[in-house]
Amino acid sequence: MTEVTETFESQLSRIHLALEDENPQEVSEALEDLEPAEVALLLESLPLSERIRLWEQVPAEDDGEVLLHVHDEVRSTLLEDMDPEEIVAATASLDTADLAELFEDLPKQVAEDMLRTMDEMQRTRLQETLSFEEDSAGRLMRTDAIGVRSDVTLETVQRFLRWKESIPDNTDNLMVVDRIGHFVGVLPLARLVSHDQETSVAELMDADVDVIQGDMKSRDVATLFQTHDLTSAPVVDNDGMLIGRIVIDDIVDVIQENSEQALMNMAGLDEEEDLFAPVLPSAKRRAVWLGINLLTAFLAAWVIGQFEDALEKVVALAVLMPIVASMGGIAGSQTLTLAIRGLALGQISKTNSNWLLRKEVGIALLNGVVWALVVAVLAVLWFKSVAIGVIIAAALVINMLAAGVCGIVIPLVLKRMNIDPALSGSVILTTVTDVIGFMSFLGLATIFLL
Amino acid sequence: MTEVTETFESQLSRIHLALEDENPQEVSEALEDLEPAEVALLLESLPLSERIRLWEQVPAEDDGEVLLHVHDEVRSTLLEDMDPEEIVAATASLDTADLAELFEDLPKQVAEDMLRTMDEMQRTRLQETLSFEEDSAGRLMRTDAIGVRSDVTLETVQRFLRWKESIPDNTDNLMVVDRIGHFVGVLPLARLVSHDQETSVAELMDADVDVIQGDMKSRDVATLFQTHDLTSAPVVDNDGMLIGRIVIDDIVDVIQENSEQALMNMAGLDEEEDLFAPVLPSAKRRAVWLGINLLTAFLAAWVIGQFEDALEKVVALAVLMPIVASMGGIAGSQTLTLAIRGLALGQISKTNSNWLLRKEVGIALLNGVVWALVVAVLAVLWFKSVAIGVIIAAALVINMLAAGVCGIVIPLVLKRMNIDPALSGSVILTTVTDVIGFMSFLGLATIFLL
Repeated sequence: MTEVTETFESQLSRIHLALEDENPQEVSEALEDLEPAEVALLLESLPLSERIRLWEQVPAEDDGEVLLHVHDEVRSTLLEDMDPEEIVAATASLDTADLAELFEDLPKQVAEDMLRTMDEMQRTRLQETLSFEEDSAGRLMRTDAIGVRSDVTLETVQRFLRWKESIPDNTDNLMVVDRIGHFVGVLPLARLVSHDQETSVAELMDADVDVIQGDMKSRDVATLFQTHDLTSAPVVDNDGMLIGRIVIDDIVDVIQENSEQALMNMAGLDEEEDLFAPVLPSAKRRAVWLGINLLTAFLAAWVIGQFEDALEKVVALAVLMPIVASMGGIAGSQTLTLAIRGLALGQISKTNSNWLLRKEVGIALLNGVVWALVVAVLAVLWFKSVAIGVIIAAALVINMLAAGVCGIVIPLVLKRMNIDPALSGSVILTTVTDVIGFMSFLGLATIFLL
Repeated sequence: MTEVTETFESQLSRIHLALEDENPQEVSEALEDLEPAEVALLLESLPLSERIRLWEQVPAEDDGEVLLHVHDEVRSTLLEDMDPEEIVAATASLDTADLAELFEDLPKQVAEDMLRTMDEMQRTRLQETLSFEEDSAGRLMRTDAIGVRSDVTLETVQRFLRWKESIPDNTDNLMVVDRIGHFVGVLPLARLVSHDQETSVAELMDADVDVIQGDMKSRDVATLFQTHDLTSAPVVDNDGMLIGRIVIDDIVDVIQENSEQALMNMAGLDEEEDLFAPVLPSAKRRAVWLGINLLTAFLAAWVIGQFEDALEKVVALAVLMPIVASMGGIAGSQTLTLAIRGLALGQISKTNSNWLLRKEVGIALLNGVVWALVVAVLAVLWFKSVAIGVIIAAALVINMLAAGVCGIVIPLVLKRMNIDPALSGSVILTTVTDVIGFMSFLGLATIFLL
């Protein structure tokens, strides 16, 4: 019985210090207390040279599980350090779904050798799994479901299970199949142990369960598990033949990945990004996002450039203009974030987007007017000009209204174009609020001040 | 057997249209296909009046489950529409953990009446659960664990289960306890059905499992489930007495909430925010965030105001200055996001933050120099002044370096102060990059151009 006392963070610090002190003895001892998923997190928390030093100390029997748990980029840094024999040994104990996940990251030669030396059944299973697209149910599923026939009694089932001796991890249901392997229902273990042994499987099985097609997207599978409170589900092919099962364990990983993806994409980063990726490739990848931003920044600068006259005559405009752009940006990002969450939960569609738009316009108008008054008063006090106060107030209301509308419209349009709104929504929105902010403020000033 | 074909989004649209057409018949039919969690999402996707209309059509027996699945703010809109009898009826079928989750949102009078009319055992259980803090394991746990003694045989256990007839949902393990209720181990159902019935529980049970204290934080419980691949875990009190069990189902909800929280907090929103909250209270809540931003925007404006001389003489400065601030903001938010994810995964601590800082400074320097050159060339071409090109290049490098350093330092400092870096990290960072951006660009211009 393990009482959970030391936090993961303090374990992490202990190992970091042991690595700095070059104390392999203590590192090894600390490693023993960690699960493969924790070793994975630990490896990710280290710069390359320390990571490799630690990786060489990880017990070989954990290598496969650890490789599964690290992000893609980190995985390739670890694989590069292994020779082919080590890789083959590390993957030997993995089940088909896990092996499939690693397979495409393996060095080509190793992958080919592995396929050649596998036994027939393993190879067929692996190739079947690989025939499904990445991020589909077929890739998520395990192929170790236990099938039983519906015309036998519970006693027969229990005898069969005792003969098998071990049951795959996370088995909560047995799968009931017909003679040729079509899925017909599930027999929960909880029913198996709580009913009379003479009962037949057919009487007790649950035929009314959600069945997943192998090509369903993992994201949709995760939503289904969450909304239907599932802990496992059978997977079938187009003919209704049972081909595997998906367990909630793996769904938790999908949910975690999706959440990381949303967070990272909003900053133009990839969710597989290695915290300690080497400087040069990291800088290269981020440069793309900075370049896109530079284009929008130059667009905003060009807009400002159209009003050089006004700026030359009234320097207060240059001082105040970032306020208009910034308030629009913040208001817009609030609406955008609400819309992104709603879209992720499947709650926003054509049919209710009008309601939502009306509400956000109302909020934008209200906050626009309130903050416009505040800013106007401060601007008048600062620059002793009522005209500037009126102009900045008008520009703020215009920009915050535009922000509210675009905060709803942009993610909806992106979604329809099959572009992830979390990825590009905020860049486009900022461009709009910058351009409209500068244009309305400097434009109104040109008309009424000069 | 239900093949999953229609997507939730299309079901949603169908009901939206039926509500608009005022076709209660079709609404009722569509509702029948939905799970309570889906009804919850549907209710959240509607403005208040349509929401109440739909809520009144939801079958009373689902009310309790639906209330559990909606976000807090939406829950109160639904509860307001129910009279006390309806609330009591809706909560009657909930287990203790679920009831505890709703309990504090109930009208005070209803809650008191409910406590009074409850039977003794229910009341004790509820009060015990409520004695744990929100977001702790004690609140997450279910109190329906099945306990068995270690000195009996599997046959006796199965006879006991058959006598009980039904086993609580999501039971994968039976809990083994001693005579007075101390937790001693678990007996997986999978072992129960696959071993000889004469075996004793003691021989077969697993004593080496993770045991959770009732006051452990839910976030830490979720991390434990993820890193140790758990599907359920026993919960004990300080004396080691078994008080409940936590199942992965509820952990999935914790993970989902945490991920929504990170996303919403970055825009200064609360994760419980109702998509269709009425305009006035929504506007009020968002106003706080806008007000904070206004302070930082005025700070930036004040910095610009210090350089009125330079701006009056060289209008190009006003045109180009947003580029410096914006590039710093983007570079900083990339580093900040990486740090926020690392902190959430528990991967960043004092012991490796220096390594990380060095790496991010390297990236900032590299990208700073590259983009400074690009911007300098464009600025020289635009304004025919080499001096302006040199000045903007220098300011960009300074600001991007500051962004890289602050992107690591700010979240670490916030974390140490127990403030969620996702909530205030980006406002603080933007303030820094705006101020340093304007100050370096306009300051260098004042020194070298005037």
